[in-house]
Amino acid sequence: MKKVDHIGIAVKNLDETIPYYTETLGLKVLKIEEVTSESVRVAFIDAGNVKLELLEPMSEQSAIHSFIEKKGEGIHHIAFGVEGIEERMNELREKGVRILNEQPKIGAGGAQVAFLHPKSSYGVLYELCDKSGLKG
Amino acid sequence: MKKVDHIGIAVKNLDETIPYYTETLGLKVLKIEEVTSESVRVAFIDAGNVKLELLEPMSEQSAIHSFIEKKGEGIHHIAFGVEGIEERMNELREKGVRILNEQPKIGAGGAQVAFLHPKSSYGVLYELCDKSGLKG
Repeated sequence: MKKVDHIGIAVKNLDETIPYYTETLGLKVLKIEEVTSESVRVAFIDAGNVKLELLEPMSEQSAIHSFIEKKGEGIHHIAFGVEGIEERMNELREKGVRILNEQPKIGAGGAQVAFLHPKSSYGVLYELCDKSGLKG
Repeated sequence: MKKVDHIGIAVKNLDETIPYYTETLGLKVLKIEEVTSESVRVAFIDAGNVKLELLEPMSEQSAIHSFIEKKGEGIHHIAFGVEGIEERMNELREKGVRILNEQPKIGAGGAQVAFLHPKSSYGVLYELCDKSGLKG
């Protein structure tokens, strides 16, 4: 784990929430995109050394919809930036960490991502996020 | 808000949790301290660009104890590094943000801290963390 790439935050409505981050906290929106595979609309907010990833569910099938139903809006996950995601997944599996997906899947911005089960991580949903394939 | 200083994570037992961060994730403990005013024992983990603050309740009066009782272990708050915390608190109050404490209080490492009410922040407990008084 080299660094934290972003912090994922589940919100009900992106358009209602963004002004809090921009006007009240004075932060900037870097981009907004839809990740159809996860059924979420995503806004990345620049918080200086790390990004805040606001996640709005686009359907009831979205994991973010279920999260909000159960726990309400709030912090959803912490994403570590990694390189060589498949090797990292294997190393973690060998150390007994349960990984939620068999193979990396494609997340926001085309990054390869995988999630560690919160039961392996003392309650925290950690994401591995590999953008190295996007360079060059 | 200049940057994220740390991410607070509520854990039941620091000594049981730390090896996950060090041995499994390969991160380093920066320091461990007790914050008696908050009734927590705290370990700061170096995650590169940001710190992870593991918080263990030292008594049933600790807000972290109540959090774990209600929601289980997991991500508790995001702390922004700020300077001039009282002015920042006033600016935010003027913008309609509810702040949980009247005055800054002393948090881990002697920093001045204040918390924004999650109802003002779309479900996220944000902390303002001012270490500028600690320099020089």
